Amino acid sequence: MKIYIIGIGLIGGSMAMDLKTIIEGIEVFGIDSNKKHANQALEKGIIDRIGTLDNVAEADRVILSIPVKESLALLPKLLDQLHSDALLWDVGSTKEQLCELIANHSKRDQFLAAHPIAGTEFSGPQAAHRDLFNGKPQILCESNKTRPDLLTWAKQTFREMGMYLRFMEAAEHDKHMAYVSHLSHISSFMLGKTVLEKEEDENNIFDLAGSGFESTVRLAKSSPEMWTPIFEQNKENVIEILDAYIKNLEHFKKLLVNDDYKSLFREMKNTNQLTSILNGISKK
Amino acid sequence: MKIYIIGIGLIGGSMAMDLKTIIEGIEVFGIDSNKKHANQALEKGIIDRIGTLDNVAEADRVILSIPVKESLALLPKLLDQLHSDALLWDVGSTKEQLCELIANHSKRDQFLAAHPIAGTEFSGPQAAHRDLFNGKPQILCESNKTRPDLLTWAKQTFREMGMYLRFMEAAEHDKHMAYVSHLSHISSFMLGKTVLEKEEDENNIFDLAGSGFESTVRLAKSSPEMWTPIFEQNKENVIEILDAYIKNLEHFKKLLVNDDYKSLFREMKNTNQLTSILNGISKK
Repeated sequence: MKIYIIGIGLIGGSMAMDLKTIIEGIEVFGIDSNKKHANQALEKGIIDRIGTLDNVAEADRVILSIPVKESLALLPKLLDQLHSDALLWDVGSTKEQLCELIANHSKRDQFLAAHPIAGTEFSGPQAAHRDLFNGKPQILCESNKTRPDLLTWAKQTFREMGMYLRFMEAAEHDKHMAYVSHLSHISSFMLGKTVLEKEEDENNIFDLAGSGFESTVRLAKSSPEMWTPIFEQNKENVIEILDAYIKNLEHFKKLLVNDDYKSLFREMKNTNQLTSILNGISKK
Repeated sequence: MKIYIIGIGLIGGSMAMDLKTIIEGIEVFGIDSNKKHANQALEKGIIDRIGTLDNVAEADRVILSIPVKESLALLPKLLDQLHSDALLWDVGSTKEQLCELIANHSKRDQFLAAHPIAGTEFSGPQAAHRDLFNGKPQILCESNKTRPDLLTWAKQTFREMGMYLRFMEAAEHDKHMAYVSHLSHISSFMLGKTVLEKEEDENNIFDLAGSGFESTVRLAKSSPEMWTPIFEQNKENVIEILDAYIKNLEHFKKLLVNDDYKSLFREMKNTNQLTSILNGISKK
């Protein structure tokens, strides 16, 4: 079986590494616009060869793991080339526009919209590692539009990677992701920006900050190359949740200005209920 | 040497545990308005006996580790009782009002305002453990107002706990803490609130959220009992930094509304410089 990985970063690279242990006789071709990354992936044994987009017709499976905006440009052309038993899945963080784009493509049923929730603030093939997906959710969107035999293969393969599967519509996926992922990134980036602006002496941040600060701004290390197009693709949902967040911060400020500490206490107490949910996440 | 710990939570309890390994012949008395906590501390061996506030005169060292508002009420009365060679230090997260309150107390020089940056989202004596302070900063405020022999003892003791010392004025301390700690807590609490409000089905949060969400809302588990008075004490500084944060979020939103992805990219790229600072923190 020939696998093409287009974009050999944390997700694509880690997926290739897992596939090599699951599928016998697999041959992995890697394509990356960043030549350094492609060579690193080769040296690290993530891929067996460097491939080219012109030869995608020989691929049995294709993983599309590049920034979402580039996927939009590339996906239709890739589908055009697929042989009749090939399956292509993407791993992007937004799905609605991508699914709409190829809704009427003649090979729509050879595509599967997948989103493994396994990203970290690190990127590139050096960050890739085996078992990244073990115990993590894999969201499959509009999976009823994928050809049953190909879908069955994919579901089984993802489960062998240790993932548990969730199914939803593309629009629903994008909305939830705005809530539980995209907002966290904005919150983190802007928190980092605010503190950098205020703390003229960066040594103070280093010396005085504890693990709490570190935890809330961790995502501010994330790649702008990846996140700019995610925010663009999911603009409407992101603005909606960002508005709600700003409103809640304004409300918190108002309580503080008014010395209404009873309400301030209640705000925090009510939010403490997240604890049980979070304990569930950290066990994943 | 008799040590009194007033408030046997994460910080007070952990400090008692360290002191027991550092000071020979130490006898630790614990006082806590929560009887369950006092008994847990006794069972866990954090304290040797349960003490009473009436007997503080017999203490050689007193650690005041209760919510900052209660410290304000209690500190002058405790100082009144101290014998002439006793030292009392607090471990609270705000310092300006406390230092002002006892500025003219006849035993001002037997007090040391200390802030170990070692809190977590957990609280209570069950969370206490040895070595919590190892490698962490201890901020000492207005230490020139503490009697030199008592200050020397305290500095040596904190260093034996593995802490590195930083010295600053109380007002300066409170400002920095608003930046690198208090804002993170508000950001986290309100992020948690926003997502809880939007995600009607809590299972979605559990299923779809990754480690990024977990990291940014971790502090929303924190104790409202502890944090309400911190925000009250540090109201001015907190409002100032919260305003700056909201402004930055509004700006981010505006860029998104205007489809100005070039600037959005730059915002994130500039904030990436936190990476090196954060790598420093996580090595602490």
